[in-house]
This record gives sequence, structure tokens and C-alpha cells, in this order.
Amino acid sequence: MSLKLTILGFNSAIPKKKSAPTAQLLEIAGRNFLIDCGEGTQVQLRKAKAKFSKIHHIFISHLHGDHVFGLVGLISTLQLLGKETPLYIFGPKGIQDFIMNQLKHTQARCTFDIVFKELESKESVKVFEDDKVEVFTIPLDHRIYTNGYLFREKTKPRKLNIQAVGNYPEIEICDYENLKRGRDFELSNGEIIPNEALTLEPEKSFSYAFCSDTRYKPDIVPIIKDVDILYHEATFLSDLQEMAQYTGHSTAREAATIARDANAGKLILGHFSNRYKNTNVLLEEAQSVFENTIIPVQFGVYEPDHEILKLNS
Amino acid sequence: MSLKLTILGFNSAIPKKKSAPTAQLLEIAGRNFLIDCGEGTQVQLRKAKAKFSKIHHIFISHLHGDHVFGLVGLISTLQLLGKETPLYIFGPKGIQDFIMNQLKHTQARCTFDIVFKELESKESVKVFEDDKVEVFTIPLDHRIYTNGYLFREKTKPRKLNIQAVGNYPEIEICDYENLKRGRDFELSNGEIIPNEALTLEPEKSFSYAFCSDTRYKPDIVPIIKDVDILYHEATFLSDLQEMAQYTGHSTAREAATIARDANAGKLILGHFSNRYKNTNVLLEEAQSVFENTIIPVQFGVYEPDHEILKLNS
Repeated sequence: MSLKLTILGFNSAIPKKKSAPTAQLLEIAGRNFLIDCGEGTQVQLRKAKAKFSKIHHIFISHLHGDHVFGLVGLISTLQLLGKETPLYIFGPKGIQDFIMNQLKHTQARCTFDIVFKELESKESVKVFEDDKVEVFTIPLDHRIYTNGYLFREKTKPRKLNIQAVGNYPEIEICDYENLKRGRDFELSNGEIIPNEALTLEPEKSFSYAFCSDTRYKPDIVPIIKDVDILYHEATFLSDLQEMAQYTGHSTAREAATIARDANAGKLILGHFSNRYKNTNVLLEEAQSVFENTIIPVQFGVYEPDHEILKLNS
Repeated sequence: MSLKLTILGFNSAIPKKKSAPTAQLLEIAGRNFLIDCGEGTQVQLRKAKAKFSKIHHIFISHLHGDHVFGLVGLISTLQLLGKETPLYIFGPKGIQDFIMNQLKHTQARCTFDIVFKELESKESVKVFEDDKVEVFTIPLDHRIYTNGYLFREKTKPRKLNIQAVGNYPEIEICDYENLKRGRDFELSNGEIIPNEALTLEPEKSFSYAFCSDTRYKPDIVPIIKDVDILYHEATFLSDLQEMAQYTGHSTAREAATIARDANAGKLILGHFSNRYKNTNVLLEEAQSVFENTIIPVQFGVYEPDHEILKLNS
């Protein structure tokens, strides 16, 4: 599977003895992306047996402490571990000063470049792209400037139909790349063999959308349409919708409505208010709108087709 | 007992799965002082069942991450918990900008005043005093400006010798305070009853010295003379004395030499290099110089006369 999400923490506001603030590790198309970084995230990464050396990109949704207070500590640890390659940090305008001022005061000796990509657009923009994956912002509506992120695998190469290709001795190994890219093949007698006769459909490309923290914001639906996994905050039940509006958060019903309207494959809820000792009430409210909803567990690993792969820690 | 030290963490450099960076909670003369505040300290305080509402004074030794990265998160949590009284933070010059810049970017709504006492003196200075306790800096020698802190109970009031006082019907309850302060009593016939005849010695006043991080610095000995408990970092064994010198740390032998020369009651070591899987080697090296040395345990509670009171967590 080319997409794997590890929930490192999904607490709101205050770190607890047994549950951490927001942080997630997304493995997609061979890349490791860290999403949000509340206090203690580096320890959560250790408990999840994540490899620090694979983390080169960090995406921060907004500059509230429960989403970012662990970032400077993680950077310091990467320095102590001798990281040499650049670290790319995506986040709201101000994040560079927020981090660099701390590193200045702690007289950190930086062993690697930190490349900040500061965001201020209120539209969805592409912030990262390589040959396999693209990342877009999802503008959210919180008390402070906030973006979710959409991680999307690019269309994968078509797969060679080895049996069909074998029927044409003229096709050589050096032609395979063009076939995978969808090109037809012209025989020396001028006959055109259509690509569909030589290749099979590519493997499915997966996508993941992270949306926290935000008021109900239906205009994100087109951005995340058909996403395989949607994480959407659900701080309150519907009876506290006014409170959700006031504090810049969503209800479970609203999160599920976004998932339903976006035709998401799966909805993961999180960022629950501490008032809910039993979060099943939030799950039930969401499932009344969107059946395939789950409440994550800390260190749970999620794939598009599996509920929980394994529990680290 | 009027002095109780809870070790919340004593790791060097990098937070680990099961052991936290430097932070200690000192209860002395009814006050709760937090000393250093590495990442995750607020969770360590919860695990130690400490009352956040009792913390009004925080003493930071230096601005390296493993001693201060948890401070902004703790402040934010105190805000969310609705603290209203001032929080006093003692630390190196720059700590105010270090913290306030983070609070500015996170748009924290401060429910209480934060009063910074920024330090830059290279001499020992008194930084806090009330009717029961005094706190002095202990100038240390690290790679960055660093102070340890000496916490000292003031001499306690003398205790009334109720039996002796009962022999003089002229002495009234309103006279007791003067007697406790050491004054003699004059009878109406002009006779002077010396204080020693009416009162007993006061209870012992205790003291605690925190010294981390530092190179061997014998000129701190007069400052901490006769301290009841000394915490002194011991990052290395003596065979790495050059490394200790280079990185601004002490060996176990050096820590013990300070304890011996200061006539300390007890020495607690900490801040060990990660290379020592078994810290007994550090303990043995120190004990060859100063017998009453201990290696703390996380959440261990220490009093002058007890090794470990209880283990929280």
C-alpha cells in the first residue's frame, strides 16, 4: 500500500498523561511527511518507531501551541542526530520567525538548512510536488490563519502486459518506459499497436486530506473531492454548535457532512473536547451522516482499505 | 519536612521514550518552585500529580532546549486552566523575548501577568526573598550563560517552651511573637527573663542547590557551603574529562568533589551522557570521592533525610 497514516496524537488543547496533541506521520509514495507537531511529538515518533532520518518535510496547519510547540525540539534533536540534508517546513507566515527566534536564543548550531515555505494565501495552492506526489493547501476557518493539507499521489505509470508485449519481438526493453507512459507503439511495417493492447491500468493513486482546526467550511469539498482518507476535526457534538462556531471548531455532524459531500472513502475524527470522556457519542453522531467514520487510537496506523494495521508504542 | 524535591526528568540533550529532560519541582517552606522545564515537563508534572495552581515561580538555568523547550507549553496550559495570579520566571537575559515571541505568534490570550526576572550577572545574586525563603543564583560555566540556584530557608522562629512560659503569668499570648523572634522578656518588677529560658531552638532550616549544566567550577563551593541536598550534573566519567571540558560539562568525580568541598549533606547526580547505559559507573566514581551520592529515579521524591520517599507516575 502506498499510503499509510500513523496517528501520533489527536488531543485538543492540553497534552495529557496518556494522549498527545496533534501530530501525524503520513507515508505516501515512499515519502515521510510529518503533519503538525504538538509538544512531545518527537517522543511520539520514537514510540511509533519512526525513522527521524526519513523526515524531510513538515506541514504545520496553524500556530496554536497544541499543533506546533514540539517543532523546535524536533529540529534540535535532528541537529543533535547530525542531519545534513535540508528540512522543509510549510506553515503560516510567521513560522520562520517563531522557530528561528528560539534557535537564536538557544544558540543552536544548525547542521542543516531549514527551508521555510510560509503561507498566507486564502486560496488552495500547490506547495509541494515531485515525480510521485503533490501537496495542496486546504484553506480552513479557525481563530487564526490555518490550512489543512491534501496529499495526492500522481497517476502512476501503466503496467506492462508482458504477455502481450511478448507477441512483438520488435519491442525492446528501452521501449518499456514509453509504453508505461501511455504511448502507442509503431511497428517497422507502419502498423500502430495501441497502448491499451500492450499495457494494463496503473495501480490506484491514493490521497489523504488533513483538516484541523476549522469551523464547518463546505467550500473545501471540491478541493478534497473523492479523497481516500479524510481526517477532520470534530471538537464538539451538535448541541454545542454555537460553541463550535465561537471557538472556530466543527461538530461531529459537520465533519461527517464534509466527508459525505466530498465522497471520501473514510473519515477519521479527532481533536475532541476534553468534556467527552466517552468519544463514542461523537462517533455515533458522525456515523448517522457518514457511515465509514472511525475514532482513531494513538499510534494506530491507517490505510485506505484497513481500519487499523497495527498498534505501535 | 519543609524541603521536598521531585525529579521530573534528568536526561541530557534528547527526550526519550521513558525519560524526560531536566525539570524538578522543589517544595520548600510551603512554596512550589519549578526548576528548569524541558519539553514535556507539563506532562511530567501531571504524572507526578503536582498541582499546577501552586506553581507561581519558575527558575530556568539556561536557554538550551533540554532545559527550556517545555516552558511555553506550560504557560499556555496555565492560561487554558485560567490562572489569574502572576507567574514569575527567572532566567538568562533573552528569556522574555524567547517566550513572548512564541506567545505573540500563537496569539495566546494571557489571563495572567508574566513577570520576567532576566539575569546577566556573573556574580551570585539574590533573586527572590519572602518571609520564609531566599533564592540565590549560582553562576555556572557552560557553553551558554548559565546559573544554578540555591534555595535556602530562612532561620525559623524559635519555639515556645510552653512549660517555662507557664511559670510567668505575666506573659500573654500577644507576647509570643516577640519571644519566637528571640527577644527577652521584662517582668513588671524589672527582672529580665532571657529568651533562652523561655524558648527552644528553632527547627532546622534546609537548603537545596541545583547545578546544571556546568564545567567543574570550584568557586561555587562557598556559595553552596553546607547545603543539605546538592544536585550536580555529571555528564561524563573522568576518562572523558577533556570532552567534559570541551562541551561545558562535569565528570562524576568533579561533581563529587564539589559536594565534598561544600560539605553537602547529600549529592544527587544527573544529566548523564546517553553513552552510559548503566549509570552505576558514574555513581561508583562519585562515591569514591563523596559517599552520600545517589542516582535519582524519575518521579523520585527526595528529602534531606530520606533517599526516596515515594515514586509517583
